[in-house]
Amino acid sequence: MEVKIALIGCGTVGRGLLEILEKKRSQLKSAYGFEARIVAISDMLKGSILVPDGIHLDKLFALLDGGGRIDQYYGEGSTAELLNPLDLIEQCDAQIIAELTYTDIKTGEPATGYIKKALRSGMHVVTSNKGPAALHYKELSGLAHKNGLVFGIEGTVMSGTPVFSLVENGLAGNEIREVKGILNGTTNFILTKMEQDNMAYADALKLAQQLGYAEADPTADVEGFDALAKVVILSNVLLGGDVAPADVKRQGITALTGEQIQAAKDQGYRYKLIAQARRKGGKVDASVAPQKLPLSDPLAGVMGAQNALTFDTDLLGKITIQGPGAGKLETGCAILADILAIHGRLKEKHLRSV
Amino acid sequence: MEVKIALIGCGTVGRGLLEILEKKRSQLKSAYGFEARIVAISDMLKGSILVPDGIHLDKLFALLDGGGRIDQYYGEGSTAELLNPLDLIEQCDAQIIAELTYTDIKTGEPATGYIKKALRSGMHVVTSNKGPAALHYKELSGLAHKNGLVFGIEGTVMSGTPVFSLVENGLAGNEIREVKGILNGTTNFILTKMEQDNMAYADALKLAQQLGYAEADPTADVEGFDALAKVVILSNVLLGGDVAPADVKRQGITALTGEQIQAAKDQGYRYKLIAQARRKGGKVDASVAPQKLPLSDPLAGVMGAQNALTFDTDLLGKITIQGPGAGKLETGCAILADILAIHGRLKEKHLRSV
Repeated sequence: MEVKIALIGCGTVGRGLLEILEKKRSQLKSAYGFEARIVAISDMLKGSILVPDGIHLDKLFALLDGGGRIDQYYGEGSTAELLNPLDLIEQCDAQIIAELTYTDIKTGEPATGYIKKALRSGMHVVTSNKGPAALHYKELSGLAHKNGLVFGIEGTVMSGTPVFSLVENGLAGNEIREVKGILNGTTNFILTKMEQDNMAYADALKLAQQLGYAEADPTADVEGFDALAKVVILSNVLLGGDVAPADVKRQGITALTGEQIQAAKDQGYRYKLIAQARRKGGKVDASVAPQKLPLSDPLAGVMGAQNALTFDTDLLGKITIQGPGAGKLETGCAILADILAIHGRLKEKHLRSV
Repeated sequence: MEVKIALIGCGTVGRGLLEILEKKRSQLKSAYGFEARIVAISDMLKGSILVPDGIHLDKLFALLDGGGRIDQYYGEGSTAELLNPLDLIEQCDAQIIAELTYTDIKTGEPATGYIKKALRSGMHVVTSNKGPAALHYKELSGLAHKNGLVFGIEGTVMSGTPVFSLVENGLAGNEIREVKGILNGTTNFILTKMEQDNMAYADALKLAQQLGYAEADPTADVEGFDALAKVVILSNVLLGGDVAPADVKRQGITALTGEQIQAAKDQGYRYKLIAQARRKGGKVDASVAPQKLPLSDPLAGVMGAQNALTFDTDLLGKITIQGPGAGKLETGCAILADILAIHGRLKEKHLRSV
């Protein structure tokens, strides 16, 4: 079944999604009966297009790879209408909006506005944006539920490493009592280098920046703000909490010294930046801080830029999943998993209506 | 929505499933709208009953805990009809058959016969039995598919630690290129004790037997037959292989010495009994053997009776999940997850029919 999709935001994640859709076109059709028609793309920097018949992705890639803008799709001299995302959602006739703009963890905007508009217009939404999921999950999932729609956020915490789908399906029937994880690959890479190669913090950070793991301004990673946004999402979505970013105790890795890390190693421990949330007396208690883990903890073995999350459940005890936590194809893959889940529902609905 | 379930086999796993259903009755109803009605139970040792109105589980538990038989459910002197499982499937009007009898890895019987009967009678099947899944997966899943039914096998590999649901949902869109895992908790416990506590193999085995991890005859575990059955299932279900047990290279842990294990440890390695299957030139190559893993391998950190499995995927690279691999509630939980997935489908079907 063909599904019409519009992208709001076409940076790294958007490009990753489109590359997967193009590369795996025939495989997705044969395995799932799924065909994607990209009917619109809007990007703050690269312009917007509406193509009701479906965008030819190889043509778009050639255009972008040559340094062109999205709105030159109809030709070099074409003056495509400049649409803001809200108008594009109104006009595009998509069944799914993939909201892939930048995260603003203070307001969740403008993404939250786009998501509301889409849900009110009867469109499913999938997003990798931490802002709306961390700040407005209850409202947005309530709006989706009221309208019989999906608000898919698989890509917001560990990119394509499954979190929400794992809890919903594989762990169905379990109550999640606590989550505890390594949710920031940059800091885990830095801590790994400080321990294994005896690097100074500044050198490890510099290497992370050279490898593209850390931004020029590394504050969001090294001070724990990125992990904080993710643990807020986990608190509210998986533990039924009502946690705001300001409620989370936060400490980054900048105060950790090489001496502390080596001393822990000598004692059979390993420092990790741990995001943790647990139910406690009707509330959810969330924190981000370096913790000295015994090597027997499954999280202690997670090295380099990997992420991992341990779910403490009532029936199964502890389940840990480890995998990538970022990346173009990795996050695109999370968006695809949410889209395929919606496609499954659309197929059922289609069966109901015939 | 109420779902009618019959159990064929009511040993440890069956009891675990029933205890979960009873304990979580109200939670399953509020979270999923799911209500279980157990309409029949058949057990080779404890007799069988048909109770179309639904078995009162607390009454059944009291009976069994007092040393009674299932077929005394209607009273001490009652002579409940002795039904063989095939007749029970025919008479019970269940929507789901939970096939929870013992594994016979040579023939897959009598379980395979029960499963076929159920699928041909229009009933979904969930099982934790490795025999039918390892030997007859293609035939049974084909039969299920032809009849619009589910053949759920989540409990066959790592008890409640998700494997098949993880691939189907969370890793949707990915191709699995290889699986590699620790699929036998008993041998992992023994290797852990030999390495960490410097125990001799015989002492570690004895401890495993005392703790209930190993059977009096430990052959199936320590010679790798249990892991072999599981890697056959993974090969055929996840990698599309056509692997028979005899095709798998198998080596257990009995030839491993404490000296080898300590020498590996000194070099920064750790011995694990690894079940592995990969695509290779249109075929699937599967093996079970001790491997010396570097400590950086996520599987190297898996200690004690835990299980873990690494999926090598085309889009996400390596994803590893770790959790329990056996246990009454743990395996019951896998059966429940499969039942809840079927319940989701039945709800959709019900919506379609009204």
